[in-house]
Amino acid sequence: MKETLATFIQNHVVQLNSELEASIRKRAIPDRLKESMLYSIKAGGKRIRPMLMLAANDAFGGTPERVMPVASAVEMIHTYSLVHDDLPAMDDDDVRRGQPTNHKQFDEATAILAGDGLLTTAFHLISQSSLTDGEKGFILKEMAQASGAEGMVAGQMLDMEAEGEELTLEELENIHRLKTGELLRFSVLAGAYLGGANVEQREAIERYAKALGLLFQVQDDILDVVGNADELGKPIGSDVGNDKSTYPQLLGLEGAKEQKEIYARKAKDALVEAGVESTLLEDFVDYINDRTA
Amino acid sequence: MKETLATFIQNHVVQLNSELEASIRKRAIPDRLKESMLYSIKAGGKRIRPMLMLAANDAFGGTPERVMPVASAVEMIHTYSLVHDDLPAMDDDDVRRGQPTNHKQFDEATAILAGDGLLTTAFHLISQSSLTDGEKGFILKEMAQASGAEGMVAGQMLDMEAEGEELTLEELENIHRLKTGELLRFSVLAGAYLGGANVEQREAIERYAKALGLLFQVQDDILDVVGNADELGKPIGSDVGNDKSTYPQLLGLEGAKEQKEIYARKAKDALVEAGVESTLLEDFVDYINDRTA
Repeated sequence: MKETLATFIQNHVVQLNSELEASIRKRAIPDRLKESMLYSIKAGGKRIRPMLMLAANDAFGGTPERVMPVASAVEMIHTYSLVHDDLPAMDDDDVRRGQPTNHKQFDEATAILAGDGLLTTAFHLISQSSLTDGEKGFILKEMAQASGAEGMVAGQMLDMEAEGEELTLEELENIHRLKTGELLRFSVLAGAYLGGANVEQREAIERYAKALGLLFQVQDDILDVVGNADELGKPIGSDVGNDKSTYPQLLGLEGAKEQKEIYARKAKDALVEAGVESTLLEDFVDYINDRTA
Repeated sequence: MKETLATFIQNHVVQLNSELEASIRKRAIPDRLKESMLYSIKAGGKRIRPMLMLAANDAFGGTPERVMPVASAVEMIHTYSLVHDDLPAMDDDDVRRGQPTNHKQFDEATAILAGDGLLTTAFHLISQSSLTDGEKGFILKEMAQASGAEGMVAGQMLDMEAEGEELTLEELENIHRLKTGELLRFSVLAGAYLGGANVEQREAIERYAKALGLLFQVQDDILDVVGNADELGKPIGSDVGNDKSTYPQLLGLEGAKEQKEIYARKAKDALVEAGVESTLLEDFVDYINDRTA
C-alpha cells in the first residue's frame, strides 16, 4: 500500500465513521433496533466501498463533503447484506470480523429488521442530503440497480444456488460481478459522477470497477487458502467448508495469482482511458492486490 | 362500500396489477428469485395502499398514469414486509391469504432475498419513472421515512417487543401508527402531492391518513374476533394465539366499535379541512369501516 492512499484513507475514514454512526444515531429508531444497526455498522471492516467512492471523487477533482452521505449509504447497504447473509437460513455464520454476528449478539428477528432498516436508511440518507434533485435521481437509481434484485441480491441468490455445484470460470465471474462487483461499481461510479466525470469517463471508470471487483474476489479466495485467520477475522478454509467454488480451486493457486494480474492490468488500462491514471484509483488497485486481510 | 369507490377500484386494480407484475417480470432477475417475488406479489390482497393513493390523487384532480409507478412501489414495500414478517424468526406464519407463505412455498433464504429484492425494486421503480427529479426526490424521501427504521420497520420491532406485554391504548396506537399507519400515510400523501395538493392540504390529508390507519387496525382486530376465516384467509383468533394486544381486548368489543367511529369521524373532518370532502377518500372511510376481510 503506497503512502498516498494510506494517508488519504487515514484522513477520511474517521470522518466517514463519524458521519455514518451519526446518521443512524440521530434518528427516532426504537432502542434495540438502533443498537443492532449500530452494532454491525461499528463492527468495522476496512470501509473499502466508501473509500473507493471518495478516491474516485478525488480523482475527478471533487470535494469529499458532498460525497459523504452517499459513502455512508453504500456502507449501510454493504453492512445490511452481511447481516442478512450471516443468518442461519443463509450462510449461518456465528462470527464476523472477530465478533458475534448480529443474530448471535441480538436475535434473528432483530437481525432481519436491522438489515431492512439499514437498507432503507441508505435510501433515506441520500434523499435527505443536500445534493441537487438531479444528482439524487441519478445516484438513487444507480444504487437501487447495483444493490437490488438485478444486482447484489441477484448475486446472493446465484451464490446460494451454486453451493455444491461445479462452476465454470464464467459462471463464477458472473456471481462475483453481481454479489460484490455491483456495489463496488456503484461506489466508483457515484464518486466519479459527483466529481464531474463525463459520460465517456464514467463508462471507462465502470470497466475499472468491474476489473477491480474481480481482483478483489480472487484475492479474497487466495486469502482463504493462504491467509491468517486472526487478520481475516474468520476461519481459514471456510470457503472449502461451505462447498463454494473459488478461483484457486478452478485455476490452482498460481493460476489464481496470474488471473489477479490480468484483472489488475485491465483496471489500470481503464484508468488511462478515463484519463485518471496516476491517481488514488491506481493505488487502489495495488492496495486490493496486496491486501492481507 | 359505495358504488363509486367500487367502480373506481374495479377500473384501476387490473391496470395496477398488470403494471406491478410487469415491473418485476421485465427485469434481469435470477429465475427462482423472480418467481418468489412474483409469487407474493400475485398472492393478491385488496391493494388498499395503491388504491388509496390513486383515490387521493383523484381527489385533487390528478391523473392515474403518473401515479402508477409509485402505487406499484408501495405495494412492493407492503408485500416485502409481509414476506419478512411471516418468517419463522418473526411471526412464523405458514399461511397468508389462503396460500403457503413465501418461505413455505420456497425456502427461508429465498424469502429473505425476495423481501430484500422487493424493497429495493420499489426504490428502483420510482427512480426510473418519468416523474420530474423534484417529484422523485420528494416521493423517495417520504417513502424511505414511512417504510424504514423510523417508520414501518420501527413498528415491526415494537410490535415484536410488545408480545406478551400488556399495552396501554397509547402504546398500542403508537405501534399501529408505525407498523401499518406510516405506509398508509405515505400512500395518501404521495397521491395528494402528485395530484397537486398544497402544503396545508397535505398536512390535513396526513391527519386523514393517520385516522384511517387506526380505523383500519381496529377493524382488523374486530375481524380477528368476529370475522370469517375463509374470507380473511387466516385463522380467526390468531392475534389471541400470538399473545398480541388488541383493541377488543383493551376496550371490549363494543368499546372497539365506538373507537372505530371516533377514528372515522376524525378522518372525515380532516377531509373537510383539506377541501376534498365528498370524494373517493370519504368513501374509503366507509369501505375500511365496513370491510369484512
